[in-house]
Amino acid sequence: MAASDSQDGDSVVFIYDRRNSAAPEVKLSTTAIDCFAKFKDAVKQLLGVEDGEDFVIATTNRDEIKDDKTWDYVENGETLYILKDVKQELCAPAQERVDYLPHYDTIVKGGMYEYYASEGQNPLPYAFAELIDNSLAATALNDGSRQIELRLFLDDIAVSKNCIVVIDNGKGMTPRQLNNWAIYRLSKFTRRDKRSRGQDLEPSGANDSINLASTWAPRFMNSDISYFGVGGKQAVFFIGNATRMISKPRGSKDVHELSISKDEFERREKSNQSIYTGYIRNRQPGDSSHLSGEDELLAKLISEEPNRESFTAVVIQGISPQHVSYLKHNFNMWTRQLAHIYHFYLHGPEGHELKEEGEQKVESNPFNNINIQVTMQLRGNPNPKSIDLRKIEDDIETQYVRTAASRFEFKAYVDGSTAVEGIVRYHPFRYDKETYPVDAYAPRLDPVPEDDHGYAINDRPARGRRPIFEAFWNGRLIPYTLIEEFDWCSLPKKQKNIPAECYNRISGVLWTNDSFQVSTNKLTFLDLEMKLRDKGTNFVRMLNGHERRTQIEREFQSWLKECNEEHDKQILFSGNSGLRPRLDL
Amino acid sequence: MAASDSQDGDSVVFIYDRRNSAAPEVKLSTTAIDCFAKFKDAVKQLLGVEDGEDFVIATTNRDEIKDDKTWDYVENGETLYILKDVKQELCAPAQERVDYLPHYDTIVKGGMYEYYASEGQNPLPYAFAELIDNSLAATALNDGSRQIELRLFLDDIAVSKNCIVVIDNGKGMTPRQLNNWAIYRLSKFTRRDKRSRGQDLEPSGANDSINLASTWAPRFMNSDISYFGVGGKQAVFFIGNATRMISKPRGSKDVHELSISKDEFERREKSNQSIYTGYIRNRQPGDSSHLSGEDELLAKLISEEPNRESFTAVVIQGISPQHVSYLKHNFNMWTRQLAHIYHFYLHGPEGHELKEEGEQKVESNPFNNINIQVTMQLRGNPNPKSIDLRKIEDDIETQYVRTAASRFEFKAYVDGSTAVEGIVRYHPFRYDKETYPVDAYAPRLDPVPEDDHGYAINDRPARGRRPIFEAFWNGRLIPYTLIEEFDWCSLPKKQKNIPAECYNRISGVLWTNDSFQVSTNKLTFLDLEMKLRDKGTNFVRMLNGHERRTQIEREFQSWLKECNEEHDKQILFSGNSGLRPRLDL
Ligand SMILES: Nc1ncnc2c1ncn2[C@@H]1O[C@H](COP(=O)(O)OP(=O)(O)OP(=O)(O)O)[C@@H](O)[C@H]1O
Ligand SMILES: Nc1ncnc2c1ncn2[C@@H]1O[C@H](COP(=O)(O)OP(=O)(O)OP(=O)(O)O)[C@@H](O)[C@H]1O
Ligand SMILES: [Mg+2]
Ligand SMILES: [Mg+2]
Repeated sequence: MAASDSQDGDSVVFIYDRRNSAAPEVKLSTTAIDCFAKFKDAVKQLLGVEDGEDFVIATTNRDEIKDDKTWDYVENGETLYILKDVKQELCAPAQERVDYLPHYDTIVKGGMYEYYASEGQNPLPYAFAELIDNSLAATALNDGSRQIELRLFLDDIAVSKNCIVVIDNGKGMTPRQLNNWAIYRLSKFTRRDKRSRGQDLEPSGANDSINLASTWAPRFMNSDISYFGVGGKQAVFFIGNATRMISKPRGSKDVHELSISKDEFERREKSNQSIYTGYIRNRQPGDSSHLSGEDELLAKLISEEPNRESFTAVVIQGISPQHVSYLKHNFNMWTRQLAHIYHFYLHGPEGHELKEEGEQKVESNPFNNINIQVTMQLRGNPNPKSIDLRKIEDDIETQYVRTAASRFEFKAYVDGSTAVEGIVRYHPFRYDKETYPVDAYAPRLDPVPEDDHGYAINDRPARGRRPIFEAFWNGRLIPYTLIEEFDWCSLPKKQKNIPAECYNRISGVLWTNDSFQVSTNKLTFLDLEMKLRDKGTNFVRMLNGHERRTQIEREFQSWLKECNEEHDKQILFSGNSGLRPRLDL
Repeated sequence: MAASDSQDGDSVVFIYDRRNSAAPEVKLSTTAIDCFAKFKDAVKQLLGVEDGEDFVIATTNRDEIKDDKTWDYVENGETLYILKDVKQELCAPAQERVDYLPHYDTIVKGGMYEYYASEGQNPLPYAFAELIDNSLAATALNDGSRQIELRLFLDDIAVSKNCIVVIDNGKGMTPRQLNNWAIYRLSKFTRRDKRSRGQDLEPSGANDSINLASTWAPRFMNSDISYFGVGGKQAVFFIGNATRMISKPRGSKDVHELSISKDEFERREKSNQSIYTGYIRNRQPGDSSHLSGEDELLAKLISEEPNRESFTAVVIQGISPQHVSYLKHNFNMWTRQLAHIYHFYLHGPEGHELKEEGEQKVESNPFNNINIQVTMQLRGNPNPKSIDLRKIEDDIETQYVRTAASRFEFKAYVDGSTAVEGIVRYHPFRYDKETYPVDAYAPRLDPVPEDDHGYAINDRPARGRRPIFEAFWNGRLIPYTLIEEFDWCSLPKKQKNIPAECYNRISGVLWTNDSFQVSTNKLTFLDLEMKLRDKGTNFVRMLNGHERRTQIEREFQSWLKECNEEHDKQILFSGNSGLRPRLDL
C-alpha cells in the first residue's frame, strides 16, 4: 500500500465480500501490513475464509490485487472486492467512499481564463477593478478620507521583482476575516449564515456589507460591490501567481499576513500535505523580520505600517511578462479605463462636469473623500508616473458628460418593482461637426470608410454603430454590457418632424444594483437587456424629480426635437460661396 | 470549546506565551477539558506559570478568553496568546494555522453566474453544449455509431419530477474516472500528471484526450472540447441543483453511480461531516433497487442499461422553473441553437449543403456516425417532441451554407505559426432582394427603421451591422466572439470598381483549436481578435489547397468583383415601366 496519508499513520481498506452475498462492508486496518501475503492472510482471517477456498481480491474497477506490485498501488481508504472470479457478476451493490476535494487550480486558475478582450481592450484594468471594488467596500464606513492606492513596480529584466500592490485605509481584516478571504466562493451571504462568535467579539464584520447594500445611495453607489466571494482571488491570480495579504483592523495592535501562491500549493501537493492549510503571521506593525534581504519593496511597504490606523494591502507577485509589457507601455490608456469604471464614485452622480472658474462644486460629489491614486515605477527610472484618477479629464465618460447639451432622465420598472435609473444625453451638431465624443484611447478597429474624394462616408456619423447605453452596477461600470437602444429612443418607422441624424447624437447610461445579476467576472450583466425589453417593463421620464405620466416615447421625441432646435447649430448659406461637404449625407 | 470536529475526538489548541518572550508555539490537548477553569489550570501547568502571576488568555484578535462562555467559542486547532495585558504589544510574531477549504458553492454556484444572455438569446443551449462536448470526447474513439441523446422530461406542476438527461454511448468512466470527474478544476492536463496505476490497470484514460488534440481533423474537429475541468459541473449546476452521473466503461461488468447535490452539501455541512466525501455506488446494470418508488424516469433509464455496452448518463434534477418554461415554449429555437453550435460535426467541413436528388454526399461528412437526438416530453402530453439535430435545415448556419454562391478560403498565421482557417461566403443579390439569410429564430432586437413610404431605410442591407465572422473552437461554435471584419475584406477608403454593397453580402467563419484560449464558460475567445489584428499576423488565400502568393487584399477584391459580376442578378430596365424602390440606397 502506498505510504499512508492519514493522521498518525493509520490506514484502512474497505472490503466487500461479493463471492455470493450482499454482506455490508468490513473495515480492515492495514497499518501493520506491508506486503501482499500479509494482506491476503488478514483478509482470510477477517472474512472467515477457509484454507483451500479460492478467492480473488479486486478493485472496484475489477483490477486484481494479486502480488506485492499490485498491492502497493492500493490506497488508504480504498474499497476492494472479494470475488470468486474477477469477471463475475456483482451479486449485490457496493458503495465506495470517494473524496473529491476541488483541485487547487480552483484558486490558481480561477482568474486565468475569466477576463477576455473585447473591442480590442486589454482586460487587465477589470482585474484591478476587483481589488478596487474590495477597497471601496472596506473604506465605506471611514469617517475621513478613503485612500486607495494602486502601486506598480515593474521590472522587465529582473522579472521576480515585479510587484503590484493595492492598499486601502479601510477597516482591514481580523485573523478570521483574513481566513475567510481565502475561502473560495465564501460570499458575504454565506458568511452571514456562519456567525462565528455570538458575543460580538468580531468587529461588525460580515454584516456591514449586507447593511451597505440596503442603504440608499445616488445611482446605487453603495460601495457594496461584492457578491460572489471570488473576485479578489480571481484578480490576483489573473495578474500574477502569488499574493500576500497584509491587514490591520482598526483598534488592533497586530498586523495579520496570509500568503497564497501557486508554488506553495504545488509544494504541499508534492509533500502530501494538506493543500488548503496555511499560516497567518500575526506581528507588530513595521516588523519585517520575516522577509529575506531581497524584498526591499515589501520592507518599505511594511515600514509604513506604524503610520496607518487600519489598512489592507494586497501584494501581487509573479506577474506575467505580457501584463508587465502592457502596463508599462499603456499607462494612459489603462488609467483612463479605471477612471471610466469608477467615474461616478470619483465625481458624483452628475459626473465630471466642467467647473466654472472659482465655482465650488464640491457639494455635488458625496464621494469627494474617495481618492484613487495610481503610481507606476519602472526599473531604472527614478521618476514614477503617478496620477490621481479624479484628475483625469480625458476618459470617455468625462467627454460624454462635457459634450452633453441636455439630459433626459428616466426610470425603468421591471416586474413592477425593480428599478433601473437612466439618462440619455444629447451631443449636438455644432457648426461644422458633431460633438459626440470619440474615445481617444479606444483602439480603432475599423478604418473609417471614405468616398472617392477621401471624405468619410460613414453614413451614420456621431454615434454611428455604437450602442446608446452603458450600464453600471452598484455604481461601477460593467464594461461589456452595451445596450443598443430601446423602442422609445430609436428611430421610428414613420419619421416624425425630427431629423433622423438626431438619433445619432445621443449617448446613455443605466444604473442599477444587485436586483440585476452580473456574471462572476463582473464583465456582463446576465439578463439586464432581456428584462428591460420585456413587455412588462415600464419606462417613465423623470423631470425635476417627478415621474411624468405621458408615454415615454412622446416625452423623448419632444425632448429630442427641443435639443435639435435649441442646440444643433448649422451654418445657413445666404449665397453660394463655394462647395462644402455635407456630413449628414 | 465547541464540539470537537477532529477524528477520534481529539482536540488541541496552540499557545504562544507572549508575555515577554518569543517562545515557539506549544500544543495543548483539550480533549479532556470541558470548562474554563480546567483550561486555565492546564495552561498554567503547561507554561510553568506560578500561582499569583497574573496573565490573560486571548485569541489572535485579542478577544479575551476568561470564562465558560468565551471558552466555549474556542475552536479545535485555534491559536491563543498568553499575555500580560490584552492590549500589550506583540513582543514577537505568532503563526496561526488556518484552513481555507473552498466553499462548496465552488461547485453549486460554479455555473450559476456564468452563462449570460447576449443579443436576446437565452444561454441555456450553451450549458447543454458543455455536456454534449463531453459526450463528443467520450465517443471519439467509438468504432461504430456515436449516439448522443438529450432527453428532457418537463413538468411545470410537479416541479420535482423535472429531469434532463444527457446520455452517450462513449467509453464511460471507471470508478477513478468518475471520482476525477467530481474534482473541480481537475483538467485533462492535471490528471495526466497524476498517473494513478503504473501497470496500466486503467483503460487508456487520461491520455486519450491529449492524443485526440494532436490528431489532425478537418476544421480542427478533434472532438477534444475539454480544457478546464469544470464544464460539466458548471452546466449541471446552471441547469439544476443536483446531478447523478451513471456510467459503465466498455468491458466492465459494473455500473458506477455518483451523485452530487446542493442539498447533500448543506446536509453534510450541518452535521459537520466532510463536505467533499461521497459514495460511488457500484452495481449491476439494470439494478434500480436503490431508487425510491417515485423515481419512475430513473428506473426506466436504468432498465435500458443491460442493452448498452458502455455509456455515460448525466441526470440533472432540481431544474429552475424559468429554465423549464423557456425549454417548453421554445423547442424550435433552442434546438436550432444546438444545431448551429455543432453544425460542422453534424454535417462535415463543408456544412449542410443541399443534396441533389439521389446524390450521395455521405463521403464528404467524416462525422456521419455522430448522432445527436433531442427529445422533450411534457407533462400530460403522450407525444414527445423529438428531433435529430442533423435533420434540421433552418438553423442559421445551414442558411449561410445554402445561400452562398461562392466561397473564399483563407488561412491566418499568428506569430508565424499558429494557424486559423477561414472562409468568406458571398450571398448574392437576386433580382429584387438580397439572399443574405435572416435568422428566423434570432430575437429581433431593433425594429427595422423605415422611410416615409414605409420602406426599410436601413442603408446597410443584407449583412447590415452584423459582424462578418463567427468563430469555432475545436469544431464547436464559440457563440459570443464575432469579428466585424479584417482590413483586407472591409470597404476600402478609395473605392475600387466594386460596388460598396458587395461588402454587405459576405459572411464568414473562422476555425481554430487550443492554440487560442477561450474563456472558461466557452462563450468567448480571450484574445482571438486581438491576435488576428496584430501587425505580425499573415493572411493568405487558399485556392485548390494551395496558398496564393498574391497579397490577400487583392485576391479578395478580385474574388468579390467576380462574385458581383457572376452572381448578383439585377433586373435591367429597357423602358420606363414605373417606379420601383431601389433597396441599395
Ligand atoms: N481590501 C480589503 N479590505 C478588507 N476586507 C477585504 C478586502 N479585500 C477583500 N476583503 C474581504 O475578503 C472577502 C473576499 O473578497 P473577494 O473579492 O475575493 O470576494 P467578495 O468581494 O466577497 O465577492 P466578489 O467575488 O463579488 O468580489 C471580501 O468579502 C472581504 O470580506
Ligand atoms: N460523458 C462523459 N463520458 C465520459 N467521461 C466524461 C463524460 N463527461 C465528463 N467526463 C469526464 O469528466 C471530466 C470532467 O468533465 P468536465 O466537463 O467537468 O471538465 P472537462 O471536460 O475536463 O473540461 P471543460 O471544463 O473544458 O469541460 C472529463 O474530463 C471527462 O474525463
Ligand atoms: Mg470582491
Ligand atoms: Mg467538459
